[in-house]
Amino acid sequence: MKPVTRSPHFNRRVLLSSLAVLPLLSASLHSSAAMARAQRDALPSWNDGIAKASILDFVERVTEHGGPYFVPPDKRIAVFDNDGTLWVEQPMYVQLAFVLDRVKVMAPMHPEWKAKLPFAAVLDGDLKAVAASGEKGLAELVAVTHAGMTTVEFETIVTDWLANARDRRFRRPYTELVYHPMLELLAYLRANGFKTFIVSGGGIEFMRPWTDSVYGVLPEQVVGSSIKTRYEMRDGTPTLFRLPEVNFVNDKADKPIGINEHIGLRPIAAFGNSDGDLEMLQWTTLTDGARFGLIVHHTDAEREYAYDRQSDFGKLDVALDAAAVNRWTVADMKRDWKRIFAFE
Amino acid sequence: MKPVTRSPHFNRRVLLSSLAVLPLLSASLHSSAAMARAQRDALPSWNDGIAKASILDFVERVTEHGGPYFVPPDKRIAVFDNDGTLWVEQPMYVQLAFVLDRVKVMAPMHPEWKAKLPFAAVLDGDLKAVAASGEKGLAELVAVTHAGMTTVEFETIVTDWLANARDRRFRRPYTELVYHPMLELLAYLRANGFKTFIVSGGGIEFMRPWTDSVYGVLPEQVVGSSIKTRYEMRDGTPTLFRLPEVNFVNDKADKPIGINEHIGLRPIAAFGNSDGDLEMLQWTTLTDGARFGLIVHHTDAEREYAYDRQSDFGKLDVALDAAAVNRWTVADMKRDWKRIFAFE
Repeated sequence: MKPVTRSPHFNRRVLLSSLAVLPLLSASLHSSAAMARAQRDALPSWNDGIAKASILDFVERVTEHGGPYFVPPDKRIAVFDNDGTLWVEQPMYVQLAFVLDRVKVMAPMHPEWKAKLPFAAVLDGDLKAVAASGEKGLAELVAVTHAGMTTVEFETIVTDWLANARDRRFRRPYTELVYHPMLELLAYLRANGFKTFIVSGGGIEFMRPWTDSVYGVLPEQVVGSSIKTRYEMRDGTPTLFRLPEVNFVNDKADKPIGINEHIGLRPIAAFGNSDGDLEMLQWTTLTDGARFGLIVHHTDAEREYAYDRQSDFGKLDVALDAAAVNRWTVADMKRDWKRIFAFE
Repeated sequence: MKPVTRSPHFNRRVLLSSLAVLPLLSASLHSSAAMARAQRDALPSWNDGIAKASILDFVERVTEHGGPYFVPPDKRIAVFDNDGTLWVEQPMYVQLAFVLDRVKVMAPMHPEWKAKLPFAAVLDGDLKAVAASGEKGLAELVAVTHAGMTTVEFETIVTDWLANARDRRFRRPYTELVYHPMLELLAYLRANGFKTFIVSGGGIEFMRPWTDSVYGVLPEQVVGSSIKTRYEMRDGTPTLFRLPEVNFVNDKADKPIGINEHIGLRPIAAFGNSDGDLEMLQWTTLTDGARFGLIVHHTDAEREYAYDRQSDFGKLDVALDAAAVNRWTVADMKRDWKRIFAFE
């Protein structure tokens, strides 16, 4: 790997200190080990700036043995939203694209869908109407297209679909539409002893087949929405059969509940991009000790998309205002990310 | 530590091979590394016998690089029931002892409990009647005594109770009534790259405060029953408030569901002791590849308790019959365990 020449670590730190952005970092300035660590750039796709510096400073603080903000590795829990935080969510959630494709495949067996919302909207290709059906409509579509098979069968369907589906704008598999700076961040955190969890409103079984190979996030580290399943023996083989009934929607104020249920520890770092992540960011950061919250702000219509307060998907409004109040870092994709996708 | 002298590894293996108990093990006989490994006894509290040998052989098979049964570390998932498998469940579940104590503490504020089952049975000290109220009654008692406070407050209540409560027979804290051979087994599996999860009908939040220090099982590795929680901001502080409503009962046919939801991978080894573990054992073992199921059989009334088909707690009936059919290992506590508790 080609080494990247950077401005001296000390100067960047002094600059930030003088801005009083991170008053807590001065202690670690005296650690030559910390300086040496930071001089090898772990986040080469991030431009120098407050967002990158705040990440590096947080990680140095919680990993500094004997320091006032040290957190033992078992408690270095970082949670990441998925849609819009780790991969694209425009012009619609990837899982919704999956749902639309599945509805079309299944439609011949369901003639009644032609006159029934939200199915009719899907078959008409009317995305506005689909979006207008809201979370409830989405949940209905998800339940119908995600149920009626075993967990093993569903995993095969998802894996096959992802292998063949292509995003229309980028003409690439969706699993290539992941943000390279965030992959670097995931790897950087893990290299510093963090456990990285996904905490997404997306379906837990929709994500698990590929999060390890794409993000390095194991199935047990994925928290998401789910439908109910039923255990049954079929011809002497145990199966879990997926039922058309929502079990848990892991979004908004239910994200802290999903985190508590799955992880059982309060995270020390949270990464999101929409109002659906507001409570997760609150739950993670509004307590004692070193905590870190970051919002990915979609500001680059050329390289990706630009949207926030008015978007049908990934609306960022209340959480953007809350970021200023709660000192969450806002990563401006246009300004802070040297490159967005690996294929650029 | 004092080294333990053992009969030669090879002889034990030949004996077992001749019994045709483990026809799959012959391949690993040729691995001198495997023999060297096994000669250092990782399970000193287990007497030599089929149970111990079957554990060692399974672990050697799935960890043998290039071998036909090799499983990569990320997929070495082992699941353990808790009550009766890792610690005592007689004369009642420890969590039930907690519930009884809490009901007595709370009773003055609930005069109506004197005339209402199952509360009246608790206040009368009528354990038979409490047991007769079944899972539903237990769930009701759990909901009332476990709800109405934040998750942080509940953790404090559990931690304080465990620090002060004593088992009547052994006159020790419940966290000392853990089976030493199973602690060795947990450590042995982890030393061989396994991840060890608890999958218990007990309350997930009742277990998490102490499973790391007692078992080396982290909060994220605990799967259990839960009640619903509500996220709310209180004076600017985010909290999870525990509601008197059952969310999930992680028992019997729901154990595979809990495993799938939390872990997302099918385990390759399962350890239980009662009919409540039947489906977990099926789900784990009745599939291709190297799989291992073990049932702890309580046969030692002198050192612990002796019970199976007739017990109010930890009834072992159908699963004991299924063990023979499915080739699950049965660990006979009296025969297979040299010592049961660390304090012996």
